[in-house]
Amino acid sequence: MHYKRHNGGMGEFDLIARYFTRPVRRAVLGVGDDCALLQPRAGIQLAISSDMLVEGRHFFAGTDAYRLGHKALAVNLSDLAACGAQPVAFTLALALPRVDEPWLQAFSSGLLALADAHGCELIGGDTTQGPLNICITVFGEVPAGQALLRSGARAGDDLYVSGHLGDARLALECLLGHFALPPALLAPAQQRLEAPTPRVALGQALRSIASAALDVSDGLLGDLSHLLRASGVGACVDTSCTSALLATQVAAGQTGQPLETERVRQCTLAGGDDYELLFTAAPGQRHAVLAAAQASATAVTRIGTIEASPGLRLMDSQGQTITARYASFDHFA
Amino acid sequence: MHYKRHNGGMGEFDLIARYFTRPVRRAVLGVGDDCALLQPRAGIQLAISSDMLVEGRHFFAGTDAYRLGHKALAVNLSDLAACGAQPVAFTLALALPRVDEPWLQAFSSGLLALADAHGCELIGGDTTQGPLNICITVFGEVPAGQALLRSGARAGDDLYVSGHLGDARLALECLLGHFALPPALLAPAQQRLEAPTPRVALGQALRSIASAALDVSDGLLGDLSHLLRASGVGACVDTSCTSALLATQVAAGQTGQPLETERVRQCTLAGGDDYELLFTAAPGQRHAVLAAAQASATAVTRIGTIEASPGLRLMDSQGQTITARYASFDHFA
Repeated sequence: MHYKRHNGGMGEFDLIARYFTRPVRRAVLGVGDDCALLQPRAGIQLAISSDMLVEGRHFFAGTDAYRLGHKALAVNLSDLAACGAQPVAFTLALALPRVDEPWLQAFSSGLLALADAHGCELIGGDTTQGPLNICITVFGEVPAGQALLRSGARAGDDLYVSGHLGDARLALECLLGHFALPPALLAPAQQRLEAPTPRVALGQALRSIASAALDVSDGLLGDLSHLLRASGVGACVDTSCTSALLATQVAAGQTGQPLETERVRQCTLAGGDDYELLFTAAPGQRHAVLAAAQASATAVTRIGTIEASPGLRLMDSQGQTITARYASFDHFA
Repeated sequence: MHYKRHNGGMGEFDLIARYFTRPVRRAVLGVGDDCALLQPRAGIQLAISSDMLVEGRHFFAGTDAYRLGHKALAVNLSDLAACGAQPVAFTLALALPRVDEPWLQAFSSGLLALADAHGCELIGGDTTQGPLNICITVFGEVPAGQALLRSGARAGDDLYVSGHLGDARLALECLLGHFALPPALLAPAQQRLEAPTPRVALGQALRSIASAALDVSDGLLGDLSHLLRASGVGACVDTSCTSALLATQVAAGQTGQPLETERVRQCTLAGGDDYELLFTAAPGQRHAVLAAAQASATAVTRIGTIEASPGLRLMDSQGQTITARYASFDHFA
């Protein structure tokens, strides 16, 4: 732990540790001892999440290192956001095939810039040689009993999603050569794929307003099904609402070359890597949801309704049921 | 987080998650939501440590999976022990090249048996496909202000180490083909290498007794140098005491074929993978140290003295200074 050497002799990996060793402000003890020490505030619960990113599976070899540093923390902060927790600290375990100082400089800059933006301290971790693997464990605080869970959705609740959907998947399809976008459209979509924005402020603003929440990382419908199962309910989703959330489509429409409806649905409903919040709230909370969205400067869109009957029903803009299946897929397989 | 699918479609990896999903008893929320939730007790600090084990670097391909599961948690519990913290919970992030159910069954059994022995709950994590990589982050509780640090050693303090030293390194040398031991001697040494015993009870018993502590993972002298640097002191170590801590040597002596002095010194002073506690205490604490050792059923040996003058001095059984260097090395490189 704490960037100590493993099994001795890894002088180069001591060097790596320096990119990630900074004085702590909130933690009792940061990098440099056997353990880090956190002093939890009275009345809080600690929210903990851990994600491992593997080269060739979660990101392409050669991905911009600054963005990769950002994304490795962003996907963890997104889990905290989904619980309504305030980020506090994180550990980083990093396996690298070799010491590459320009890469480390860029990676740590992207990582620590996002950490600083959220007041989330790097308090320890581990570095070693091995196939590129980034494992972050993040800690957040939430007042006891106020964490947003997946299991609280009730029949009659509204169903919302934050921000945009599907641009990350669209960019991925382009990078895989399955599809082509003009560079002016690809660049912002690729930014969404490689440097997503965790909805941390929105998550906290939704405490005591949302009845259930999770983050959309594997595709809207797949993640929604987790929420429905955990809550023992069903849902009806209006795809005319979700399709409107593809930012690339808005821009493509302005150029007079909109994307095909099926591609838009595939990307928005089963895209993955969106890192938006999917949440439910009672209809009486609509003003409160709007206020939370405004307070956190994050767009939210009502996309459907929670129903007592289990299962997921999709409707088009005419209110007709859509029977097509939109399965998630494994991006990098 | 929480064994959710990454990027969809990883049905096999959903299956993996089942090996690691168990109901929690102490945590507020365990596996299955975006975050786990811990409710820290009043007046405690949370000790946190993270270690990443990579196949081919920290363990051989083909290592017994039950022992590997044990070791992956043991090395983290050893960090908690060095702080005097009581284990509470851990997260596991696991990258596997393929789903191998017998391997998973054995790995999870070894992992969870050690977890249960220490009341340390698995509260979440991540599974994904990739080169074999095990990343555990462990959480422990320590009364505020009572954590054992590396920085508290003072001139005049006694220097102690727990248990045995060097058997893991000796086993490794045999497995690498550098050396041969009779099977009856190799087996217990290999057990020490592959399934070390974290000194959790001793660490807690030493709170308010030890002045400084860390765990010996990279070799005694290398780790001692970290403690000395953090405390701004030096030390004199009696190698006749440390050499006596090689359990294999005791057994070899009984067969009439003791090991060479130099090999014993190399393994005990710069072995690595010992996971013993190295700690200091004022001479007035000798009875208290002994009582802590007895209460935790863990042997401790006084091996030297902390001195004001920086640096590390080695003595032989005649009180002569040893000038040879015992550097750690990188085991699997």
